[in-house]
Amino acid sequence: MAKKKKTTIKDIANVLNISPAAVSKALHDDSRISKKTKKAVKQVAKNLNYQPNHLASALRKGKSNLVGVVVPRTNSNFFSSVIQNMEEVLNKEGYNIIITQSNESFKKECDNIDTLLFTQVDGIIASMANETVDLSYYEKVKSKGIPLILFDRGENDLNVDYIGINDYDSSHIIVEHLVKQGCKRIAHIGGYRHTRIFNNRIRGYIDALKKHNLPLDDELLIESSLTTEDGREKMLQLLALEKRPDAVYVAGDYAALGALQLLNEKDIKLPQEIALVGFGNEPFAAMVKPSITSIDQHSAEIGKQAAKVFLEHAKKDTINQSLNKIILKAELVIRDSSRLK
Amino acid sequence: MAKKKKTTIKDIANVLNISPAAVSKALHDDSRISKKTKKAVKQVAKNLNYQPNHLASALRKGKSNLVGVVVPRTNSNFFSSVIQNMEEVLNKEGYNIIITQSNESFKKECDNIDTLLFTQVDGIIASMANETVDLSYYEKVKSKGIPLILFDRGENDLNVDYIGINDYDSSHIIVEHLVKQGCKRIAHIGGYRHTRIFNNRIRGYIDALKKHNLPLDDELLIESSLTTEDGREKMLQLLALEKRPDAVYVAGDYAALGALQLLNEKDIKLPQEIALVGFGNEPFAAMVKPSITSIDQHSAEIGKQAAKVFLEHAKKDTINQSLNKIILKAELVIRDSSRLK
Repeated sequence: MAKKKKTTIKDIANVLNISPAAVSKALHDDSRISKKTKKAVKQVAKNLNYQPNHLASALRKGKSNLVGVVVPRTNSNFFSSVIQNMEEVLNKEGYNIIITQSNESFKKECDNIDTLLFTQVDGIIASMANETVDLSYYEKVKSKGIPLILFDRGENDLNVDYIGINDYDSSHIIVEHLVKQGCKRIAHIGGYRHTRIFNNRIRGYIDALKKHNLPLDDELLIESSLTTEDGREKMLQLLALEKRPDAVYVAGDYAALGALQLLNEKDIKLPQEIALVGFGNEPFAAMVKPSITSIDQHSAEIGKQAAKVFLEHAKKDTINQSLNKIILKAELVIRDSSRLK
Repeated sequence: MAKKKKTTIKDIANVLNISPAAVSKALHDDSRISKKTKKAVKQVAKNLNYQPNHLASALRKGKSNLVGVVVPRTNSNFFSSVIQNMEEVLNKEGYNIIITQSNESFKKECDNIDTLLFTQVDGIIASMANETVDLSYYEKVKSKGIPLILFDRGENDLNVDYIGINDYDSSHIIVEHLVKQGCKRIAHIGGYRHTRIFNNRIRGYIDALKKHNLPLDDELLIESSLTTEDGREKMLQLLALEKRPDAVYVAGDYAALGALQLLNEKDIKLPQEIALVGFGNEPFAAMVKPSITSIDQHSAEIGKQAAKVFLEHAKKDTINQSLNKIILKAELVIRDSSRLK
């Protein structure tokens, strides 16, 4: 049995019958300690397999060179691509990242923030869970004075740095594309309105319908958790309508995939009977049959920009009140699921 | 400008003109401190927005309730499913996890291990990068006396707990399936031999060919990084052979996807001209056309078992020398890419 207990400075001190302070000084090559004592201390430290505590040293210096990341989940291409690009930029500047995932749970997100604060991260880059409406945990990060940068799922009220795409405009681009294909009854399976980006997509959808003089029908607008399962379910709901839509714009590719699977199973022809558009441009969107038209969110650019904004703060060593709000222009990748003309 | 500097016990002591030790005692409700002083200390702490340092307290107690995870990447369904299931079990027991990814780089993996040790994790659950051959960083974890549990990509020589599937047998199952479909010239795009699981798959492939009296042709066995890109490239190499294979067994689904894309582009009929089998049962394997036959690695079970093994160690508070080697039986999910009969 190997005991878990770690060798401490005190253990070394006991062996040599000197004070722990003298051991510490010896290990740091303090000139007040004799060469002979230093040699003895280092030998005993080696024998006892003493490992200096880097964390304690970071606590003294107040810098861990760690950046904490909070994402809803890591197994979406969008989030993992953001993380990978962020990581590349930060690694070059000597920062490591640690990742936590909320699995869309508010409680888990709070635990994750606590964990990251506990590990003394120098900054937090986060995207919120679906459930999150209470912002007190993010206020806590702000109150600690460490940089907080939000991306994709952010919140205006927090007044922190933000990097994302223009969600309102994206809905306009999608509706315009569908109108050009001849669609007249466009449904929207959206995310939850309390999340800003999804609310913006819903607002954009409503305003774009108005702009193109299309009827806004309440039964065509459905909020969803945007999982693959829920995409199926909400599509089923739309198919049950007396007046079916001729196009469905889904606010996430995973839910669009669920909708597609259901349409394929029911032998409903895409895009002739129903045109389908997703959001996020996940790699599978190009792989499935028919391939799914989707909005590309520039994940690589979001990751790089988030890292750069953090580095700006880290270099200044103060949190500048002039915030970075970086809004990227989204791009529609047109594929078979909506290509009618 | 909000200064980043945190309020310390010393700051509170200065305001009240008492010793830092007295402040600390007051904050911990020590009976040696008067009620009046306690009240004053707590008021000043609140005014100065003092946040007790949980990490310092964890250092004293020697327990962080954190488990560190090292994976090659998080955007594979296998790894993210392992992590999610591991996380559920650990969360229930009051542990949080922090995730790091190596992106298959040895250097990054070493940095990740340093980071996790730095954050005082109570244990590490890891799967190795493709590049990793030097095990000294893992030896370092062992020498610190904290539990180290490997899954999927492990290494016998380290003599630590391990959870994975039977890779050698998996190759036998695949070759047997292909032989039953009538395939006679079976190629293998394998992983790098220096990684134990890939070496086991290669050994299994070779032995299974022998068992079925099939010729073992050197040009049919290729090592690969198993990325989608490399899968394309290695497939191209196989297509250039004078005697093409009639079946290709790829040691990873991402590489199998690359191979499939190339075959589709070249209008080579699957499975009639070439049958294809992948490994890992990533969700896209069921989505693409034709759907890819693949080995299911029981990711959920691996995650749960890894967490349980860690909890066993954590409860005992010693690292037991009787190790857990949990080898799960893999399952072949047969789909269109190899279904000839």
